[in-house]
Amino acid sequence: MSTIAVLGAGSWGTTFAQVLADGGHRVVLWARREEVARSVRESHTNPTYLGDRVLPEAITATSDVATALDGAEGVVLALPAQRLRENLSRWTGAGGIVLPQVPVLSLAKGIEHGRGSRMSQVIAEAGHVDPDRIAVLSGPNLSAEIAARQPCASVVAAPTEALAGQVAGWCTAPYFRAYTSTDVVGVEIAGAVKNVIAIAVGGAAGLGHGDNTRASLITRGLAEITRLGAALGGQAGTFAGLAGMGDLVATCASPLSRNHRIGAALGGGMDLSAAEAAVGQTAEGVTTARAVAAIADAHGVDMPITRSVVAVVDGEAGIDEITTALLARSVRPE
Amino acid sequence: MSTIAVLGAGSWGTTFAQVLADGGHRVVLWARREEVARSVRESHTNPTYLGDRVLPEAITATSDVATALDGAEGVVLALPAQRLRENLSRWTGAGGIVLPQVPVLSLAKGIEHGRGSRMSQVIAEAGHVDPDRIAVLSGPNLSAEIAARQPCASVVAAPTEALAGQVAGWCTAPYFRAYTSTDVVGVEIAGAVKNVIAIAVGGAAGLGHGDNTRASLITRGLAEITRLGAALGGQAGTFAGLAGMGDLVATCASPLSRNHRIGAALGGGMDLSAAEAAVGQTAEGVTTARAVAAIADAHGVDMPITRSVVAVVDGEAGIDEITTALLARSVRPE
Repeated sequence: MSTIAVLGAGSWGTTFAQVLADGGHRVVLWARREEVARSVRESHTNPTYLGDRVLPEAITATSDVATALDGAEGVVLALPAQRLRENLSRWTGAGGIVLPQVPVLSLAKGIEHGRGSRMSQVIAEAGHVDPDRIAVLSGPNLSAEIAARQPCASVVAAPTEALAGQVAGWCTAPYFRAYTSTDVVGVEIAGAVKNVIAIAVGGAAGLGHGDNTRASLITRGLAEITRLGAALGGQAGTFAGLAGMGDLVATCASPLSRNHRIGAALGGGMDLSAAEAAVGQTAEGVTTARAVAAIADAHGVDMPITRSVVAVVDGEAGIDEITTALLARSVRPE
Repeated sequence: MSTIAVLGAGSWGTTFAQVLADGGHRVVLWARREEVARSVRESHTNPTYLGDRVLPEAITATSDVATALDGAEGVVLALPAQRLRENLSRWTGAGGIVLPQVPVLSLAKGIEHGRGSRMSQVIAEAGHVDPDRIAVLSGPNLSAEIAARQPCASVVAAPTEALAGQVAGWCTAPYFRAYTSTDVVGVEIAGAVKNVIAIAVGGAAGLGHGDNTRASLITRGLAEITRLGAALGGQAGTFAGLAGMGDLVATCASPLSRNHRIGAALGGGMDLSAAEAAVGQTAEGVTTARAVAAIADAHGVDMPITRSVVAVVDGEAGIDEITTALLARSVRPE
């Protein structure tokens, strides 16, 4: 029985801690707020994110990151994409800690605003972690269903098959299966851009369109994710697999996701600030959309749905732009 | 303004007649039952399949097939897959009619029981139609949404780009766009096998599984459709496109489809006859599953989800077999 540190006690971090515990590990969860850590430690609940669900006894928690990392044989980073660098920089800055020389698994999905970095790049730079020790996980993983222990599969990618296999072994619970991959770039791009497509799908729902339109947006959305991923060195099979198509289909099926709700609010006629106020949260896909559009520009990749989402969130186009491109009138090969 | 004959006045045939009419064509709809033909002709409604929706004036109807075909510049076949051969054979048999020498478009989705033929092959054989005149259509096309004129896209495949373009031109309405393809085999295989995967997805829903499991089944289902299609000469791009992934995602999103409902009833513990009785209809996917499994055997193609569906409908396995394969415990590359 080994000990894994999970840094980040939101819904996905806490749920993933449950997967690790159900797989036979001791888990130390780091929460930014001591009240969350205390609740997990003392009553085995995280009411802020997981309601009254009772967590396994093998999970403990702390709000001190050095304590969380002490003795850990693996580190899982479950922080929001746009706050990953600032957290790592604060922890590992002058007078701070050194992350243990163990495998690091990234759960964050997004592209960093400004720099356009993938999460594994942020971890390598701001966490001072050798890229050979960094793995990433992505797949059709709606956390509420995993928390309820419904069966699901995911993909762990790492620079070597050996590391991917080791980390996949951490998170093999009776209801959770991790396949391995060495396509780190592909898995990270797929996991980030799907949030952008989810905004488009939410927008179409806000306009009153149904399953045909949604399926068309998902299909054309995956095509543009695949084009971008290929330009950055990702493998086609990744995008056709669980981390690509699987995660995209699951995310776009859920009208409760933040990205879908922001899109639906935009589709209903709100501007971005009104939509974010209505949803009560910022959506990762909004920031990632702009970062992805910049990367696509730099690589000459055609991403019409992403571009439409950026135009809509920037107030430069109406949400109907997103579906219009699917229905241009001329007959041409698919 | 040209005239198109649509043979088959079920929900999809009648809805497609509306698309043709909205695209500027005169349409003559053939219905097996004179009462259906009379309702379309006299009150512009088809209450059996489309409730109180009022059809365009440009659609008329008859229960006499020779009348429907008289003067038609195109023929659309919208008959159930397993009844296509018997209808064509009866019409074109001794003393019967000759189909006009015009393009024929197949809307039927399925693989023929026993012979294992694709629909275009059935049309060529039983309808005595030159394969060079036969086109097929498939895509994310839930008929209720198209009847409501929601935007959607589809694929028309034919042996030549010229024929595909001509037929795609028939069905270009303001809310309906047809892309062209020359991959007849791929479009037909995708359209048929998705009904099998929809049974599996319904089964998982019947077991209480959520969007993660559904997305995983859709992803692995498309992988096995793609393997079969490739073995039969279809093109990979077709399966990643609207006729492949698009149609699969749309079909599996709809809990109202017959295939999904049969699967859900099986997942709830019924055997096939009880499930069919509960749903009140037979499901195309059941017949097609057996035909597809036989073709996969003959070509040495691995189709675990299809095989599980056949085992379940034959009463040889429980529906949980379908998800078990997704979650085998060993860690391995995706």
